[in-house]
Amino acid sequence: MDAFMNPYHSTDNPEGKILLAVAENKLTFTEVLRPAFCAADAPAAAFGYGPMRGSPDLRAQIARLMTARICPGVDIQPDELTLNAGVAAVLSNVALALLEPGDAALIPAPYYAAFNSDLRAVARCAAVPAPCAPPGYALTPAALQGAYDAAVARGLRPACVLLTNPHNPLGRCYSAAELQCAVQFCRLRSLHLISDEIYALSAFHGRSAANREAGVEETPFTSVASVVGGALGDYIHVVWGFSKDFGGSGLRVGVLFSRNERLRRALDTLSMFSGCSGHTQAALAAVLRDDALVARYLDENARRLARSYDALAAWLARMRIPYSPCTSGIFAWIDMRALLSEATWEGEEAWFRAMCAAGVVLTPGRSQKTEAPGYFRACYAFVPLEVLQVALGKLERLIEGGAAKLK
Amino acid sequence: MDAFMNPYHSTDNPEGKILLAVAENKLTFTEVLRPAFCAADAPAAAFGYGPMRGSPDLRAQIARLMTARICPGVDIQPDELTLNAGVAAVLSNVALALLEPGDAALIPAPYYAAFNSDLRAVARCAAVPAPCAPPGYALTPAALQGAYDAAVARGLRPACVLLTNPHNPLGRCYSAAELQCAVQFCRLRSLHLISDEIYALSAFHGRSAANREAGVEETPFTSVASVVGGALGDYIHVVWGFSKDFGGSGLRVGVLFSRNERLRRALDTLSMFSGCSGHTQAALAAVLRDDALVARYLDENARRLARSYDALAAWLARMRIPYSPCTSGIFAWIDMRALLSEATWEGEEAWFRAMCAAGVVLTPGRSQKTEAPGYFRACYAFVPLEVLQVALGKLERLIEGGAAKLK
Repeated sequence: MDAFMNPYHSTDNPEGKILLAVAENKLTFTEVLRPAFCAADAPAAAFGYGPMRGSPDLRAQIARLMTARICPGVDIQPDELTLNAGVAAVLSNVALALLEPGDAALIPAPYYAAFNSDLRAVARCAAVPAPCAPPGYALTPAALQGAYDAAVARGLRPACVLLTNPHNPLGRCYSAAELQCAVQFCRLRSLHLISDEIYALSAFHGRSAANREAGVEETPFTSVASVVGGALGDYIHVVWGFSKDFGGSGLRVGVLFSRNERLRRALDTLSMFSGCSGHTQAALAAVLRDDALVARYLDENARRLARSYDALAAWLARMRIPYSPCTSGIFAWIDMRALLSEATWEGEEAWFRAMCAAGVVLTPGRSQKTEAPGYFRACYAFVPLEVLQVALGKLERLIEGGAAKLK
Repeated sequence: MDAFMNPYHSTDNPEGKILLAVAENKLTFTEVLRPAFCAADAPAAAFGYGPMRGSPDLRAQIARLMTARICPGVDIQPDELTLNAGVAAVLSNVALALLEPGDAALIPAPYYAAFNSDLRAVARCAAVPAPCAPPGYALTPAALQGAYDAAVARGLRPACVLLTNPHNPLGRCYSAAELQCAVQFCRLRSLHLISDEIYALSAFHGRSAANREAGVEETPFTSVASVVGGALGDYIHVVWGFSKDFGGSGLRVGVLFSRNERLRRALDTLSMFSGCSGHTQAALAAVLRDDALVARYLDENARRLARSYDALAAWLARMRIPYSPCTSGIFAWIDMRALLSEATWEGEEAWFRAMCAAGVVLTPGRSQKTEAPGYFRACYAFVPLEVLQVALGKLERLIEGGAAKLK
């Protein structure tokens, strides 16, 4: 938290901390989208009661956006969408409605740390990691079955598989084949499949020079809804929101796309406690109505994401630090095992502290349920490219100084 | 719900339904406050992550407003406030954090029907009515003790008393003596006292001509926080929000004022699932910073509330229909027992349907946990004064036609 209190500034506080640990994209929103948000007018109705699951107007706009850009080939109806105060609220409500206390969600690991709280804080459900193997971290039936058995062994009832696609922290998309594997696994065992696609519109497939030069085989984004041709049934649920792709974590608008009517009815009740601001919904609807603006924003954002990622990738390659190639989202998953003084969680913690002392804050792999110590998540989109470059310079000096010391 | 689909309009749909059953004040917001909301600028930070329990800026403004106008004499600190997506969310979260499943909240009856859902949907707690006696509905230790014993007899653990002050549906304020009685009752039995003061700034004490002419002894608003001189301890909690006093149900911003640190920490976690929009918080803070605007709005709103209430009260007096004199809020509690064809819940339901058929929708007392059939709640602030007058005309024709038929 020191990093929040003592933030880096190029002239005012060059010794401050550069935060690469927060899951926010600050690259494009302020310049391209904020003016439209602030200019949007809110009709009088936006200030009064409306449906707690979201205004019909905004749900219609989101249905259009998702059909066009996230789930092509799937005809999404506004009534199939429920809006809650952020994706965390959607997940907590879905867990409360679908699962029982003591039920387990199987989650391919590494994974986004706060899923544990989303499942546990209100719904009292557990997250059970399904460790996938580096360096590719392919999603396999064996990984899911391992988690299934581990849950049963812990006395838990496996009730759903929870995916993030594009992946946090890996920064890549699941292939259609991997998604099919998850669908099949869930179908055979009568599990729900919840696909958190909150980074769906932050894919920059085909735009990274680093990936091109390295001959990386890139996997484009495919929604699980498209993989099953829109046949979600009662058990596949897609989650999306404005926090990441639109840089609007503060707007608190998360989306559930589900064709399970009973689930949607349960969420109608729960939405009373996690409704979205009508004033903000009106502004979002105005922004989404402007197709040209949305296209310009998404294109510019993908360009900036690829540019920042390329700067990080080039530096990692030059430093000979292994990483998983990225095509989407705002994270890179970096293998810093060779930099640890010892291959233990204490060694990871020590290296985390050393980087913090040098002025750069990354997310340690331990919090992301990694099996081996030494992996770190970097959010390369939380700071402008120039500041990212400063952070890399600081890390470089640390590594060079440290390597000398370690000898 | 027909009323929402077929709303009254003076020229386009004069046979439509006039809704006097929704708890919203539409009298003043659009004209006086909406322009300021829409003109407010949101800084870039408002779109990103901030504290889930509310922006420091808005909490500071609310602390100032509450200290000045709701809890005079109580020095409220911004850190003692937690903001959630509406007062329903605050109450649900407080119940989840403070109470256990199966615990009971004792609520003086009649009371706001949705408390049952606020307590039950997530926290699995029960509401137990403490019936107060008409026509004054004084809050007495005997009424609270009756509810306490009823809860115990039902196998529930009485855990808190939940008050609404100003009262919904009665439209009056509790006296300091009544509040002291509740405080004492809770203190002696180690119960929490939750005071929902969501209509605190809608008091129009001293402004009603009808009350003056009838020689009504009006009780001004006093917060329970003032009654105890700010000594809330760990067990008194005050709830407020923007939905009613500021006509902004759609903004989804509710406030908890509590000095119980453990409760606030628990709500920090739960706020992840019921956070408020930063964009809306920025606009609210801008509005609250303008003391002159707030003063003008509250004054104009109180004037309009009193004027609409007076129109209703004059009509009720002329029709010789008894009602509880109002000084605050947006409801009148009307004793229509003499109009029922029979003194049963069926008789109440039949009269409710007859009024709907005549084009006017009131809230039946049964849903507000009244003991005797025939009481109705009218929200006289949901429609402009002219439309209220039309509604009263429709009711008058129904009553006169019906009275003739009944003979």
